[in-house]
Amino acid sequence: MRMAELSAESGVPVATIKYYLREDLLAPGERTSPNQARYDRSHLRRLRLVRALLEVGGLSVAQVRDVLAGIDSSPDAHAALGTAQSAITAVRGRRDEQTRAWAAGLLEEVASRHGWSLKPGNPVVDSALDTLAAFAELGHPELVARLDDYAGLADRVAELDLAGVSGRPEREGPERDSTVEAAVVGMVLGDALFAALRRLAQEHASSRAFRG
Amino acid sequence: MRMAELSAESGVPVATIKYYLREDLLAPGERTSPNQARYDRSHLRRLRLVRALLEVGGLSVAQVRDVLAGIDSSPDAHAALGTAQSAITAVRGRRDEQTRAWAAGLLEEVASRHGWSLKPGNPVVDSALDTLAAFAELGHPELVARLDDYAGLADRVAELDLAGVSGRPEREGPERDSTVEAAVVGMVLGDALFAALRRLAQEHASSRAFRG
Repeated sequence: MRMAELSAESGVPVATIKYYLREDLLAPGERTSPNQARYDRSHLRRLRLVRALLEVGGLSVAQVRDVLAGIDSSPDAHAALGTAQSAITAVRGRRDEQTRAWAAGLLEEVASRHGWSLKPGNPVVDSALDTLAAFAELGHPELVARLDDYAGLADRVAELDLAGVSGRPEREGPERDSTVEAAVVGMVLGDALFAALRRLAQEHASSRAFRG
Repeated sequence: MRMAELSAESGVPVATIKYYLREDLLAPGERTSPNQARYDRSHLRRLRLVRALLEVGGLSVAQVRDVLAGIDSSPDAHAALGTAQSAITAVRGRRDEQTRAWAAGLLEEVASRHGWSLKPGNPVVDSALDTLAAFAELGHPELVARLDDYAGLADRVAELDLAGVSGRPEREGPERDSTVEAAVVGMVLGDALFAALRRLAQEHASSRAFRG
């Protein structure tokens, strides 16, 4: 299909498609003349994915590029998820060393109970430590008591995140992408979805707690 | 205390404190001379909160300003949480009307089972609809089957979010702020914390699913 049809089919304006092409978020179409190119279903699919990651996932262009690289070039779905996780985890301002050491001890305890691995240099671990340290600095000791409960719920959410894809055997060839893509989409958009559901649930819980 | 002490105590550089003052994220100190002002514990507490919301919560300056306004001027904790929720929920690109209508039907079913209220114009509802529509456009039908499970886990996370604060009776006067602030901090930083725990859990689940 031509760019105008790609735009009509996806609902993405032509100017935006051109921007994605310039930013390497979308592979170039097959040239049919100096000013025209042909696009296929794989372009349409990728275009929808890019738009969802940017608009719904709230990722930056650079993050989307890294996530796509993970989908396209990782040896398997587990590796692709790892690349995507690193790409979408922001590095935050560091807290003081003493508080971080306290947070590290706490997180190690929780991780060992839940079978999680805490690889040094993993941005996800850094992000967890910084968040725990920030809670401590703001004086929220009740959090420590609830951390294990949060971790247990995180396990159950993660199992749901993976459930849609892990049932399928990992495929080779053109089908491989769809397993990997589904896993990554489930993770990135799953964050946005769960955050939205949690806010609706919080409103309900807050209304009961404070307006009883 | 003077600004230099406020900086030393909080670990926030003087230039950053001045920036927060200019942006109205921090109330001015009490002037003691044309070039000096005195700050107290409430400034220190607010400074830590602002830094945590910006760095760990990942909010923009404008979002932090709105969240603080919610803490300072809402009639009660439930209203403050609502203001904070609206402030931190990004409005995303709209999906096509047909997909949104499908998403609205699905969300209404789930909400009625969980006792959630879906107020028209609530940005949280819009955000949930856009995310569901994006999943649908990307062709993830398995999500629909799991939505109710996600909603059930969201309820349990929200109960934990509120558990730390709802036990306390709502206070008046200077104590009031601490209840409201604790609820808002729990919500905003709770998102960052749960996202980090979920990623650690996903890595564990993905390793079992794809390499197990």
